[in-house]
Amino acid sequence: MEKISAYGAQKSDADLEPLKIERRELLPNDVKIEIEYCGVCHSDIHQVRNDWGNSKYPVVPGHEIVGRVVEIGKDVKNFKKGELVAVGCMVDSCQECASCKDDLEQYCENGMVATYNGNDKHLGGHTYGGYSEMITVRDKFVLKVPENLDTAAVAPLLCAGITTWSPLRHWKVKKGDKVGVVGLGGLGHMGVKFAHALGAHVVMITTSPSKADDAKKLGADEVLISKNEEEMKKHQASFDFILNTVPVGHDTNPYIALLKRDATMTMVGAIDEIDVHGANLIMGRKRVAGSLIGGIKETQEMLDFCGKHNIVSDIEMIKIQQINEAYERVINSDVKYRFVIDMKSLKN
Amino acid sequence: MEKISAYGAQKSDADLEPLKIERRELLPNDVKIEIEYCGVCHSDIHQVRNDWGNSKYPVVPGHEIVGRVVEIGKDVKNFKKGELVAVGCMVDSCQECASCKDDLEQYCENGMVATYNGNDKHLGGHTYGGYSEMITVRDKFVLKVPENLDTAAVAPLLCAGITTWSPLRHWKVKKGDKVGVVGLGGLGHMGVKFAHALGAHVVMITTSPSKADDAKKLGADEVLISKNEEEMKKHQASFDFILNTVPVGHDTNPYIALLKRDATMTMVGAIDEIDVHGANLIMGRKRVAGSLIGGIKETQEMLDFCGKHNIVSDIEMIKIQQINEAYERVINSDVKYRFVIDMKSLKN
Repeated sequence: MEKISAYGAQKSDADLEPLKIERRELLPNDVKIEIEYCGVCHSDIHQVRNDWGNSKYPVVPGHEIVGRVVEIGKDVKNFKKGELVAVGCMVDSCQECASCKDDLEQYCENGMVATYNGNDKHLGGHTYGGYSEMITVRDKFVLKVPENLDTAAVAPLLCAGITTWSPLRHWKVKKGDKVGVVGLGGLGHMGVKFAHALGAHVVMITTSPSKADDAKKLGADEVLISKNEEEMKKHQASFDFILNTVPVGHDTNPYIALLKRDATMTMVGAIDEIDVHGANLIMGRKRVAGSLIGGIKETQEMLDFCGKHNIVSDIEMIKIQQINEAYERVINSDVKYRFVIDMKSLKN
Repeated sequence: MEKISAYGAQKSDADLEPLKIERRELLPNDVKIEIEYCGVCHSDIHQVRNDWGNSKYPVVPGHEIVGRVVEIGKDVKNFKKGELVAVGCMVDSCQECASCKDDLEQYCENGMVATYNGNDKHLGGHTYGGYSEMITVRDKFVLKVPENLDTAAVAPLLCAGITTWSPLRHWKVKKGDKVGVVGLGGLGHMGVKFAHALGAHVVMITTSPSKADDAKKLGADEVLISKNEEEMKKHQASFDFILNTVPVGHDTNPYIALLKRDATMTMVGAIDEIDVHGANLIMGRKRVAGSLIGGIKETQEMLDFCGKHNIVSDIEMIKIQQINEAYERVINSDVKYRFVIDMKSLKN
């Protein structure tokens, strides 16, 4: 075992102190990565503050990790020292169940190992997360990052990116489709970029008229203010697909009304109660679905697509010492559109 | 115009009196049908009692109609006098929109004409329904009934039957699939029969242990009591498809938990608020959908399938004079599984 330094929440965000965390010796299939950048996801805040009541401490959250390979295990064939790589929300899975065999490790029937708060298979405790100098990860869960992209702005692709990419691909969004993206935050801004790049006619659906200009800059063809009933009526039954990124429970019926017959709205953010009226599904054979991040194979496909189309997240860079302030600003939706921590700041 | 007698509710079920209703002269594409049997659907009761606040009076509801052709318009090629035919929940649609062109007239974008409480295109008023001696219907909305079936027991196929058949076919239920049917009533009992006939492993999901024997007689391979948490847990994430026939809003989360990854639960009865937690859709990329009756083409396919597999509804026959009592029993779920009115009783 070696000890490396990280910056972690022990019991609450008030306790932030540099930590010494045990890290395993390299296994034959391990890749050891020096982390350059880590994105700040709202889930990090929930975990640090134990909002979901399941947090294990210490935790140095973060699952939007980009860095360079510093060491590889003896059986690693696919990576070499110095290569630019990334790690997302998972670091392991059973590799044996139907979901793993279908390249959908996020739905592993035996439970995927999350990048933080997961059950560490090797050291027996829990996984800590990516606000850290180093991370050691099984090769199958390491992604290759195209070198032409802005490295820091790649980080959010690993959660916000794949969470929106996967449903757009799974529900086969294609050129000419009318696609709605509900909510313009970390997820929504990536949804707009991807749907636009896939050739869809993208409509940003938001409660805030102030977001219209930004949405268009990101690639939206139209902006629909959901509070404007008349506008909502004009768009009724006209959408081929809606990506709903709202992170809290809400009344989804106005959005269901926008769907064409047989079309789907996919929830990627709201993990609590959503309001759905049966009749709104029945009249038009509509569907409300969910989607969780994405598998490793499709995450690599997304990164390759981003390399080809020069897509990254819009970010604001911070030092680790600014993390508490950044958390408050995330909670107040005061970031365009993702904070990324420059991990060199850990050495300050 | 001719006048024919029917038995109708004028303002409430207390006002039941024989009515004289105008019926249109035969148009070139019309089929005039002497009604032999008409099923009693819960929607009939809602309409008569104005539960939905939209009832037009007089109404002689009923949209599960079986009878024989007595006259055809001059351009009708597909039907002849004396032929056994049926009419379901629709008597017309625009025939021009995308849904009509896709043989899904029930989702007609210009509004299909319902068999009762619809806007009559010809007489200008509203349509009355099938508790009547005669009905005149455009040929495209008349179905052929296999002669080998019990005619009275065919009637409920026109609503309860097609409402369950259509989603089972649309979501491609096939041999070996594990299919759940939630709720054992008029719809549920047809869902079990059809899913069984399609070769699925059928699980009746009900709150009532007393329904277990009946469910098995109808074709269920297993009965799952939804109040039994331990049993529900055993079946978790194991269903390929769930047909939810519960006619009122309810907590759908325990049923969503039964779905496999990527599987769908389709609502066919609940037209009010249903409880759905976003996380239950997200974890496993599950789907909640709706489905409304079925198109004319698939209704004919269903009737042909029923002829081949000798499938009809389980019914209790009544005279029209017993309709009020029957309504009360429907409301109390005290019928196995559908009342059918013998229309000869109108002449009593």
